[in-house]
Amino acid sequence: MTGTIKAGLVGLGKIARDQHLPAIRKTNGIELVAVASRNAQGEGLNNYGALTDMLAGEPDLDAVILCQPPQVRYEAARQALLAGKHVFLEKPPGATVSEVEALIDIAERQGVTLYASWHSRYAAAVGLAKSWLASRSPKHVSIQWREDVRHWHPGQPWIWEAGGFGVFDPGINALSILTEIVSEPIALLSANLEVPANKQAPIGAELKMVAASGAPIEAVFDWRQTGPQTWDIAIETDGGSLLLSEGGNMLRLDGEVQVKAPDEEYPAMYRRFVRLIENKAIDVDIAPLRLVADAFLCGEHRTTAAFED
Amino acid sequence: MTGTIKAGLVGLGKIARDQHLPAIRKTNGIELVAVASRNAQGEGLNNYGALTDMLAGEPDLDAVILCQPPQVRYEAARQALLAGKHVFLEKPPGATVSEVEALIDIAERQGVTLYASWHSRYAAAVGLAKSWLASRSPKHVSIQWREDVRHWHPGQPWIWEAGGFGVFDPGINALSILTEIVSEPIALLSANLEVPANKQAPIGAELKMVAASGAPIEAVFDWRQTGPQTWDIAIETDGGSLLLSEGGNMLRLDGEVQVKAPDEEYPAMYRRFVRLIENKAIDVDIAPLRLVADAFLCGEHRTTAAFED
Repeated sequence: MTGTIKAGLVGLGKIARDQHLPAIRKTNGIELVAVASRNAQGEGLNNYGALTDMLAGEPDLDAVILCQPPQVRYEAARQALLAGKHVFLEKPPGATVSEVEALIDIAERQGVTLYASWHSRYAAAVGLAKSWLASRSPKHVSIQWREDVRHWHPGQPWIWEAGGFGVFDPGINALSILTEIVSEPIALLSANLEVPANKQAPIGAELKMVAASGAPIEAVFDWRQTGPQTWDIAIETDGGSLLLSEGGNMLRLDGEVQVKAPDEEYPAMYRRFVRLIENKAIDVDIAPLRLVADAFLCGEHRTTAAFED
Repeated sequence: MTGTIKAGLVGLGKIARDQHLPAIRKTNGIELVAVASRNAQGEGLNNYGALTDMLAGEPDLDAVILCQPPQVRYEAARQALLAGKHVFLEKPPGATVSEVEALIDIAERQGVTLYASWHSRYAAAVGLAKSWLASRSPKHVSIQWREDVRHWHPGQPWIWEAGGFGVFDPGINALSILTEIVSEPIALLSANLEVPANKQAPIGAELKMVAASGAPIEAVFDWRQTGPQTWDIAIETDGGSLLLSEGGNMLRLDGEVQVKAPDEEYPAMYRRFVRLIENKAIDVDIAPLRLVADAFLCGEHRTTAAFED
């Protein structure tokens, strides 16, 4: 690959405007030239109503960035890969694990890049947390991921539908950090899912997991937290304790603050996407999505109060 | 490995008595010497109340066969692997996909055999169906798996609990055949789950899947079928049609009966287990379980009439 990568983005919603557009502008080697969106228009870009039209109208496109809800991700990704485009998948990379596995197979056969982005893995303190843990054994992990859905997901009905993940939409960020910094396989053993009477997707969840070494891992995801928001991972090890907070942007080791940095997750992901395309590489880690699928597979459903936006 | 493999079985329930005990007796190279079961006693065998006691009391044991409900499979498998034993897992191989992935990792590090058995793959006509399909492209797949839960699962409350799989307990047999005979990746796109008002696990399910080539795959699982039972997989291809019925034991190609043979699934699995141990090999295909996890992940829950055994 020489020259600037020409990219088209599908799904011009909140995450695309808040994160992708500014991050792409900051990244050398990639340029956004087109957008496909049913309702929205991107300023200064070639606009299309659908991916099919964008692929037909932009034959020089090198890469496609998919930011739609997960329920429609697979067909679009398959279409872009079969058209020979490199593909960037917003998280979660698909509505199901088997969809993502099938996309890996298609990307391999096409010889193009497929990148499943897990933005929380690029939070400022995650790398240091990982290297500190590499020489220690976790004894106990506790995850608290509590936020206010009304603040973070206003007017997103798809998130409450079947396949919309519900509270696992933020929760999968915690699982993406967990599976990045703990180097052993992690098995999900059981789960409780609190599902509002008028919704398909959970508003709260409790997970019991275990590391292959035997260390217990507990997680609580809750979408009903008003006031201060909590995105914490606490790990007790044989050599001290770690607290990763603010969604991976702040790290305390044995109580001492090590890193507190602003969120630069999306620019880091676009730098990685450019490198992956240069190397014709695939980077798809299915582990976070697998844990979510497992929670739904074995989870006990508890009906809770109806939720109105 | 020289000499006869000494095996101990955990979970002396219906499947163990109906299938495992007679199959082990028919198999050269393996001998059942002990049983661990909370309530039941195996005749002519050393009996223990739990796996821990069996491992302590039978130091010469080479292999452990796990036939308990999936909810308690992981901890037992891990314990047996860490004790250096080869492990045979009844289907499903665990309550979650991540559990099974963690067990693969542990077995690899221990250098022992781990075998995830999918008995329907050993039905008489599955091999011929697979080789016939190898030179054809599927255009459409339709699965009907309809049986009477009262007949097949009397007095098994665990099957209705969270993690008990419900109608996916038989349905995963269909998925194990599907993923064996269709050589492309298969993605699960959406599902409907009918869950009795008084249960956690579904009594009926409809799945929409797709092969990587684009061929649609539909499956209906239903546990409310009285009278004749239906376990059919019908495949239209670019070179004729296939109907696999009787759970994989009868095959019709373009309407002509090719194979109709008695069920010899479990003896074939024990012959394979003996060979795997001789070769210190691992045979764990996660694909059928992954499709089930995906159906729960994206499936729409519909509450249906309460079910009483």
